[in-house]
Amino acid sequence: MSRLWDKGLPLDQRVLSYTAGEDHKLDKRLVAYDVKASIAHAEMLCEADLLSKKDCKKIVNGLEQLLIDFTNKKWAINIEDEDVHTALENNLIQLIGDVGERIHLGRSRNDQVLVALRLYMLDAIDKVLSSIDKLCQAMGLLKEQQGEISLPGTTHMQHAMPSSVTLWCEGFIEAFKDAAEGLQNAKRRSNKNPLGSAAGYGTPGLPIDRSITTAKLNFTETQVPVTAAQLSRGKAEAHILFELALVMQDLGRLASDLLLYYTQEYSFIDLATEITTGSSIMPQKRNPDVLELVRATTATVHSCLNECLMITAKLPSGFQRDLQKIKAPLFRAIDISIESIEIMAHVIESVKFLPENIDMDEGLFAAEEAYKLVLDEGISFREAYRKISKNYTK
Amino acid sequence: MSRLWDKGLPLDQRVLSYTAGEDHKLDKRLVAYDVKASIAHAEMLCEADLLSKKDCKKIVNGLEQLLIDFTNKKWAINIEDEDVHTALENNLIQLIGDVGERIHLGRSRNDQVLVALRLYMLDAIDKVLSSIDKLCQAMGLLKEQQGEISLPGTTHMQHAMPSSVTLWCEGFIEAFKDAAEGLQNAKRRSNKNPLGSAAGYGTPGLPIDRSITTAKLNFTETQVPVTAAQLSRGKAEAHILFELALVMQDLGRLASDLLLYYTQEYSFIDLATEITTGSSIMPQKRNPDVLELVRATTATVHSCLNECLMITAKLPSGFQRDLQKIKAPLFRAIDISIESIEIMAHVIESVKFLPENIDMDEGLFAAEEAYKLVLDEGISFREAYRKISKNYTK
Amino acid sequence: MSRLWDKGLPLDQRVLSYTAGEDHKLDKRLVAYDVKASIAHAEMLCEADLLSKKDCKKIVNGLEQLLIDFTNKKWAINIEDEDVHTALENNLIQLIGDVGERIHLGRSRNDQVLVALRLYMLDAIDKVLSSIDKLCQAMGLLKEQQGEISLPGTTHMQHAMPSSVTLWCEGFIEAFKDAAEGLQNAKRRSNKNPLGSAAGYGTPGLPIDRSITTAKLNFTETQVPVTAAQLSRGKAEAHILFELALVMQDLGRLASDLLLYYTQEYSFIDLATEITTGSSIMPQKRNPDVLELVRATTATVHSCLNECLMITAKLPSGFQRDLQKIKAPLFRAIDISIESIEIMAHVIESVKFLPENIDMDEGLFAAEEAYKLVLDEGISFREAYRKISKNYTK
Amino acid sequence: MSRLWDKGLPLDQRVLSYTAGEDHKLDKRLVAYDVKASIAHAEMLCEADLLSKKDCKKIVNGLEQLLIDFTNKKWAINIEDEDVHTALENNLIQLIGDVGERIHLGRSRNDQVLVALRLYMLDAIDKVLSSIDKLCQAMGLLKEQQGEISLPGTTHMQHAMPSSVTLWCEGFIEAFKDAAEGLQNAKRRSNKNPLGSAAGYGTPGLPIDRSITTAKLNFTETQVPVTAAQLSRGKAEAHILFELALVMQDLGRLASDLLLYYTQEYSFIDLATEITTGSSIMPQKRNPDVLELVRATTATVHSCLNECLMITAKLPSGFQRDLQKIKAPLFRAIDISIESIEIMAHVIESVKFLPENIDMDEGLFAAEEAYKLVLDEGISFREAYRKISKNYTK
Repeated sequence: MSRLWDKGLPLDQRVLSYTAGEDHKLDKRLVAYDVKASIAHAEMLCEADLLSKKDCKKIVNGLEQLLIDFTNKKWAINIEDEDVHTALENNLIQLIGDVGERIHLGRSRNDQVLVALRLYMLDAIDKVLSSIDKLCQAMGLLKEQQGEISLPGTTHMQHAMPSSVTLWCEGFIEAFKDAAEGLQNAKRRSNKNPLGSAAGYGTPGLPIDRSITTAKLNFTETQVPVTAAQLSRGKAEAHILFELALVMQDLGRLASDLLLYYTQEYSFIDLATEITTGSSIMPQKRNPDVLELVRATTATVHSCLNECLMITAKLPSGFQRDLQKIKAPLFRAIDISIESIEIMAHVIESVKFLPENIDMDEGLFAAEEAYKLVLDEGISFREAYRKISKNYTK
Repeated sequence: MSRLWDKGLPLDQRVLSYTAGEDHKLDKRLVAYDVKASIAHAEMLCEADLLSKKDCKKIVNGLEQLLIDFTNKKWAINIEDEDVHTALENNLIQLIGDVGERIHLGRSRNDQVLVALRLYMLDAIDKVLSSIDKLCQAMGLLKEQQGEISLPGTTHMQHAMPSSVTLWCEGFIEAFKDAAEGLQNAKRRSNKNPLGSAAGYGTPGLPIDRSITTAKLNFTETQVPVTAAQLSRGKAEAHILFELALVMQDLGRLASDLLLYYTQEYSFIDLATEITTGSSIMPQKRNPDVLELVRATTATVHSCLNECLMITAKLPSGFQRDLQKIKAPLFRAIDISIESIEIMAHVIESVKFLPENIDMDEGLFAAEEAYKLVLDEGISFREAYRKISKNYTK
Repeated sequence: MSRLWDKGLPLDQRVLSYTAGEDHKLDKRLVAYDVKASIAHAEMLCEADLLSKKDCKKIVNGLEQLLIDFTNKKWAINIEDEDVHTALENNLIQLIGDVGERIHLGRSRNDQVLVALRLYMLDAIDKVLSSIDKLCQAMGLLKEQQGEISLPGTTHMQHAMPSSVTLWCEGFIEAFKDAAEGLQNAKRRSNKNPLGSAAGYGTPGLPIDRSITTAKLNFTETQVPVTAAQLSRGKAEAHILFELALVMQDLGRLASDLLLYYTQEYSFIDLATEITTGSSIMPQKRNPDVLELVRATTATVHSCLNECLMITAKLPSGFQRDLQKIKAPLFRAIDISIESIEIMAHVIESVKFLPENIDMDEGLFAAEEAYKLVLDEGISFREAYRKISKNYTK
Repeated sequence: MSRLWDKGLPLDQRVLSYTAGEDHKLDKRLVAYDVKASIAHAEMLCEADLLSKKDCKKIVNGLEQLLIDFTNKKWAINIEDEDVHTALENNLIQLIGDVGERIHLGRSRNDQVLVALRLYMLDAIDKVLSSIDKLCQAMGLLKEQQGEISLPGTTHMQHAMPSSVTLWCEGFIEAFKDAAEGLQNAKRRSNKNPLGSAAGYGTPGLPIDRSITTAKLNFTETQVPVTAAQLSRGKAEAHILFELALVMQDLGRLASDLLLYYTQEYSFIDLATEITTGSSIMPQKRNPDVLELVRATTATVHSCLNECLMITAKLPSGFQRDLQKIKAPLFRAIDISIESIEIMAHVIESVKFLPENIDMDEGLFAAEEAYKLVLDEGISFREAYRKISKNYTK
């Protein structure tokens, strides 16, 4: 099977292997989006009289068939194809004959990969949002069922003021809802149609109409000018990765709280046996591995953001092959974030607070006492503070 | 001058020096915001009948005076004060007497620093937006004046298709406008009023009304529940830092293009003499240091984002002193970003393209030729591509 | 097949899937090292009279057989095994019967994974060193064959002083040799025997002799005390990753130079056709993708270092499951670094400098001229500098 | 006062301010090293007959005087000087007249800054080593005085096996000694003499002898070839930063342990009052701020490493002004690391373990029991494990 740009010249196998990298594996998830965008592109060509209706129909049918066939494992992306785009075109030509060669008019792999990635990211955000929703529900349920249990509110990890399971849950729920809003806003950068920017300099002399694919693919806007498309690659990606990094930070902090509460010294909570694992040499132990792994995953997602930003840093404008490398950290972060959010919802469902072990000592109420003094005696808070503090000599 | 929490206990000087860190220097820029938020807080206490009108007036006048005095260097934040909040309260008491002690009712330094930072960030974003605007204007002017000059559009740093100064400018202008929109959206996380969350667990027994300060300070919403406030610290900061990192990436890429164009081999541009610097041992040289430093600054701002995210990572919920450390990278990144954007506007004003040195070789028009073949002969792009490619044997 | 710590309790499938993660795939490369360390451990138990000679022989033979069988794909690490350690023990018991249960005395998976990783890293460093050697040879050959070709030496990307292919090659060769020395030194942290630290607190009451495995496995030292072993996890890893990051920086800078030299404007070099790739819409192009991907890979390896450091950050001492997450970035960075170094050696072999395109302008010799003036006229360099600089008015 | 490269051309004030950046402040700490290297350079010029003995003496005396004067604040580095190198030369000429102009023969600011930084780094490492030594002593003392107190050894933050203050201290002491060895090894990259590489391409036609300055400045080797010097900038820096990042990781983990032990729920330790701070609204509290700030500082130092690596990434070879930006994160990390290590030694001196609060539950001894069963009954560990585990049903 030939590569799109094959001109009969020899290509060193090791170079191919290095340059194609993992694309033939990673690109699996892009097949549906490349098909979708290719159909929109073909129909646009047809509307612009650059493709006959008959040919367009053949191409569209062929692409739809290829998507079904891919799902049914009738074809795959091979390393010789390099990427999904070449694989799809090659398979199309094989399936419907020479007419398939007419699809690659007025586009380049540069805008093809951009559009497929953006369509994918819009979907991926929705998947993350749906897992955040599950987590919020789990926390909501926890609050409903055990919310009245008291907790020492801490600052500096020291008992500070009275808190409760309700307040604890609500803080995290606000955080996750904020994250959801952040992710929703992050769609903005994926919502720009790059199709028609081709290699990054448009299609001089070819009367294409980019607004048609914008409408067909439900993008919010067409990304003009053509030079903006490649310059923006990595930004929609970085934006999602940033928002995922924030979600993972909250998950990590939730895990830190639970790990603390689950220590023998705290014993504030119990976790379902099936959530914990055993030890290979200490028969008495039940370990909260899942929480530790969530905590560690904050590092993974943050590193994916870093990799993305570092890949585009300092590059001259115009497409650079470097950009291909963004896919791996993007996909890795999205997958592990969704898994982590969902496993956390799972864990939260099994958390049982143990009020009998939670000591609400007197000191927690010192600020409240001072407030009472202020209200009762009309003195300033500072004076009340000095009076109350005499009672405490930690 | 005493620290807010001073109970007459000894405090080790080295510990004070380590814990106060640079706060007494960094916090200068927060004075105006702490004054503003303190006034809103005092007025709220008054409306809630927790402070008499007379006392409120004294406090408000005192705070206003202190802001003027600070500008006039009549007082400063000393290391013994630790931070702006203690310094302000101490100075207030010194200025207006014991009534000043009444201001610290129903708030804590934890929500005080949050609110001051958010008010600061909202202003800081506006300052960044204004410098982006200057840069867009400079690029717009460049486009207007030299836009018609041809440039080789490149992919893989290789001549690809015809471009122009217009297209080049427009790509970056879109990028900067996108960055501006991103920064505008980043205000969302600063637009939540944390005042009244106090140490992070509210003010039990004290009938304060948080919506009053929300209105007075023009926040979009009150951040409820109280536990959400401290959990969210670092997020508004990270969001700005992320958007600044994206702006700096574009600046860095713009610098990379210009550095390339300025090499003797390209000689696509000239830069004003006053923009360049000389060499200490090579008399013939003019160096584009400013562009190199902009390029390097992408690393600085990205690292500030990293520092911010790493500081909050894995912390148990509730206020932790770690959070203090976010201020330094936040301020550093904001300052250097504004400086970099503005110096770049300055540089762009002085860029002179040299069309006589820009070679638009035939190969740049190969895709266009292929398109023409498609239109003229009705063949597929693939066939046209094969025909045209025979003319090229690089 | 049972997990080591299985006590008949239910384990939620999703938790297993999340906690085992990719370990069953990643751990493939650790099989040989786990076998090697297990054999040393069994022999130590035997020497300490904790295992009979007969049983020891059975275990050692069994382990050796399992390594052969693994290579022949007769068994694999399944997700139910969680990791290589459990898989190996399970397979051993299956192969040689109950006597296999005697291997897990005086060790834990915590020191088992540590020792396997360290043995692996010592080997991996040697593999990296061998690819660096290839690269140095390629650059040495280039220097030998084309070294006399002149190059403009640049500072600030501006012509500065005369250089040559020799000087250019030698700079990078020094860099790669320095990297090799750095990697060699990085072995130090892998060269500490953790075996016998068990879960991190030793094996109270069990008369094992840790120095025996140290000798058998050729470690430089036994890591005492037992608590040091887990606290040090991630450091040998981070050290290698840091040194790889430095190598990749040099590779990236080498790629940047070559990408510059390969532009049409420079045309300082040609690359073999089989090293470059074509374009899908621009028939005239040959693209240096491989160099761009090497440049991008600096971001990948640096991010792996970041991930490693962020995973261990702030963890309480003692083993934490978080540490498992270090394997993925470690392996990823080692693999891609070796591939990148080797592909670069490949590229360097095909670089052809084109002296006819390299313009050594007069300005390059200005400093030399100034030196001459100093020597001839006995004036200070500053004075000579001022005289010479009059000749240049860029 | 004139800049070294001044040719009478106008220089835009804003460009100067942006390009000089903070150098005039940062470079203060380099004065002594620039003086030292300049003296060695002058003496080398004299030995090579490029400077008369009389002139050399004047220059050397002048430089020595300038160092004393700088310490006495008789001169300072101004922004107009840009950096220490220009300031020093300008002041030398002012002090000893035109003969001062003879110092800048056969060197450039490029190798001047390299050599000054390396001499500085060699000293800085010694300072870090000395603070690590203090910390090890403090931990050694703690071990000596309270070592016999039992501690629950944990894995997964769960009670695992018996440990002790001794084991806990020893683990960290090993870590800090390993860090010290790492830092000692990091000197290697600072121990290469760059002097004489000048701008990066040597001093053609000028008979200098680089081995002389190598000997005079006690470098281990001369860095040949000349092109290697600039290519290596940032590596010695990154190496120190990496090792500091590792030290800070250990400090952060030590802080995490202590923060845990200091919670009300653990109450394993008490801290001296003068180590802790109070709260502005909760009169009962004593907060371990210093430990939280140490924990947060891991992020700062890691970010400095990141910034350093990102600055040099992808740069073409040859000096680039970007490299100037490495100084700020380098100095920041060194200063804060030393402060953090020393404050930690201070904290450790005040830690008092409270054995009465430390519960060594039965489960901690389960593994030991199993070992006993193995020894007593000759059964396998696996069988013993199964027997013992029946006693535990957490």
